[in-house]
Amino acid sequence: MTDQGNFPPPKLGEPYLLTPGPLTTAYEVKEAMLRDWGSWDADFRVMTDEMRMRLVAMLGEGGDDFTCVPMQGSGSYLVEAMLGSFVPRDGKVLVLANGAYGLRAAKTCDTIGRARHLLDMGDYMPPRGADVARILAADPAITHVLAIHCETSSGILNPVAEISAATYAAGRKLLIDSMSAFGAVPLEPGKIRFEAMVSSANKCIEGVPGFGFVLARRSELEAAKGRSHSLALDVHAQWEYMETTGQWRFTPPTHVVAAFIEALRMHEAEGGVAARGARYANNRDVMVAGMRGLGFETLLDETWLSPIIVTFFNPADPKFDFARFYELMKDKGFIIYPGKLTVVDSFRIGCIGRMDAAVMTRVVEAARDSLGELGVASATPPAAALEERAKLAQAKVRETA
Amino acid sequence: MTDQGNFPPPKLGEPYLLTPGPLTTAYEVKEAMLRDWGSWDADFRVMTDEMRMRLVAMLGEGGDDFTCVPMQGSGSYLVEAMLGSFVPRDGKVLVLANGAYGLRAAKTCDTIGRARHLLDMGDYMPPRGADVARILAADPAITHVLAIHCETSSGILNPVAEISAATYAAGRKLLIDSMSAFGAVPLEPGKIRFEAMVSSANKCIEGVPGFGFVLARRSELEAAKGRSHSLALDVHAQWEYMETTGQWRFTPPTHVVAAFIEALRMHEAEGGVAARGARYANNRDVMVAGMRGLGFETLLDETWLSPIIVTFFNPADPKFDFARFYELMKDKGFIIYPGKLTVVDSFRIGCIGRMDAAVMTRVVEAARDSLGELGVASATPPAAALEERAKLAQAKVRETA
Repeated sequence: MTDQGNFPPPKLGEPYLLTPGPLTTAYEVKEAMLRDWGSWDADFRVMTDEMRMRLVAMLGEGGDDFTCVPMQGSGSYLVEAMLGSFVPRDGKVLVLANGAYGLRAAKTCDTIGRARHLLDMGDYMPPRGADVARILAADPAITHVLAIHCETSSGILNPVAEISAATYAAGRKLLIDSMSAFGAVPLEPGKIRFEAMVSSANKCIEGVPGFGFVLARRSELEAAKGRSHSLALDVHAQWEYMETTGQWRFTPPTHVVAAFIEALRMHEAEGGVAARGARYANNRDVMVAGMRGLGFETLLDETWLSPIIVTFFNPADPKFDFARFYELMKDKGFIIYPGKLTVVDSFRIGCIGRMDAAVMTRVVEAARDSLGELGVASATPPAAALEERAKLAQAKVRETA
Repeated sequence: MTDQGNFPPPKLGEPYLLTPGPLTTAYEVKEAMLRDWGSWDADFRVMTDEMRMRLVAMLGEGGDDFTCVPMQGSGSYLVEAMLGSFVPRDGKVLVLANGAYGLRAAKTCDTIGRARHLLDMGDYMPPRGADVARILAADPAITHVLAIHCETSSGILNPVAEISAATYAAGRKLLIDSMSAFGAVPLEPGKIRFEAMVSSANKCIEGVPGFGFVLARRSELEAAKGRSHSLALDVHAQWEYMETTGQWRFTPPTHVVAAFIEALRMHEAEGGVAARGARYANNRDVMVAGMRGLGFETLLDETWLSPIIVTFFNPADPKFDFARFYELMKDKGFIIYPGKLTVVDSFRIGCIGRMDAAVMTRVVEAARDSLGELGVASATPPAAALEERAKLAQAKVRETA
């Protein structure tokens, strides 16, 4: 995993992106963008076919009933497309939120005219199967549950297996925003049932940003005809056109698609979802251990830490200033990410992208040196931060309640 | 204009794209995608700023009141975003259609819940100022007019100046889909009044596909708050977030943006809108003269021919088969485009992209050779095609009526 031959540094010398995407991609992925394609031409239709087949194959067990519908736009476009296409106009969504992306999904429901029940767990507490069961039992109008697989606001990996079990036990349908997890965290419909999920080119598959994709059960797609509030974001219309013509309904981001296909091939060559997930988990373990060695503390304890991105509390030392820390880290070749917690100050470091444990070791060294330059002797967080973390214990109690 | 130093052929040997976009771009434009950027980072915010300023500057006279809002997605996403954001929920749009893009705009209004009056001129007849005046006088509920600047279905350059004059004489507001024209055909709000227009990265500015942009009067943007039917396609929300943070609201296609900035710089270096338009017009003139020399006839007469894309009638000779002609042209390095007329068979050849008159001369030679290989002696169209063209004379009569 530390072979620099497989994971050479960015060729043009730009900083590593330790963020939830866009992320550091292989040079070969970017090189795939050095030519132009006609979107109507057969060559590009073959590329679209390959991409769709590879993505469906990534679903693993139970994926036979699924198909892939790529769509132009960012991840949030895809979430809106999924909600508008799979939830009937008179449906109702239970939105499970523990961060910005869950809250955005609830706002999307409001904007596009889908009724919703919001379970807002705050900054990072996980929504549990028991919560879902309780809410669904109390409200028979709810037709769908929306879960965020990895909520990058905190970096938590939400318990989608128990959420799925509770959803289908109550006879409802699950939709998953797996934007930041798909490709590195298994999501096999034969093991964790769901009707549709969305993800994006520039996350764990390590493409560049510009489009996303829906993976949905064909029967749900067929039922989605005429439902969407939007022409552009109509998943059924996109699917029907693509099935009929082999083309995208509107101009596709041809170069980004070419890059993504190269990324998909590299994903397979690395060993698929299991290998990708193992590399990211190793990235996380090396980085978190090193950061803890400097006195930093994570927001989440081990149970909930995703292999995608990790939230650290800012040190209590008043000499710590995030803006300066960010610039010092960038000078050393690493772009980190600001925090999103509402209660205590924090920042985030991503584990995904074309990098390995050797890089993560250098990240920790850069953090150590940056703290030194700031004159911060210890990275220990304030007491309030540790109180925040103690709240997670409650989540465990709730799980067994 | 024929200097091969300025317009070298595609470096990786791919065919020229003689299509309405994606099109052949400069290698330097694609090379700008060889590194990764963090979308949150200051470096990328500076890039977004430069892009927005260059696009507003391209508006020329009267552009001071305008601002630029880039948005993820294809051109059709941008048209939907414009309609949903600038037309109030109780507004009504006069959609001027003479091809697929106008009809799609009408369908978009239906989908997103905006009332509309459709003036459908058929395959290529131009909507005239007098038509607009008549309809607006008869229906006081109409608040906005939507015009397609260049309707690439036929390749017609619609008379937006007289449409604008009629719109504002009746106290209504004009929105323009200038997808395929902006950057090569002047559209200065000080000369042709309008409230907002949309275009895309992969058209006359010669970027690669992946996003588009709105150029809108600031007062109209301010009034657009809370109007959109969509979270993702809310132009006001995108603008407000960008003004506040310098960032895109959702993950931008960073590499495509970098390519577009290089394309914008090359656009300026070439001499801006006037020079770009002159090159495309010369491309068209050389190509059309050559094709006519082979016996081909254009759908439109000179008055309406855009410098963007030209529709030719298929030859009457039964040995002509478009699918085979397409492949023969592709073998010779040129990807052409199928036709979209409903009455007679046709095909299209684009004039836009990183190419000059020398390339267009070779396109004509390739067409001559391909006809020879098909055994087509003359490219003369069937009589029905010429009857179609005769209808255009009526458009001129209507203009003076």
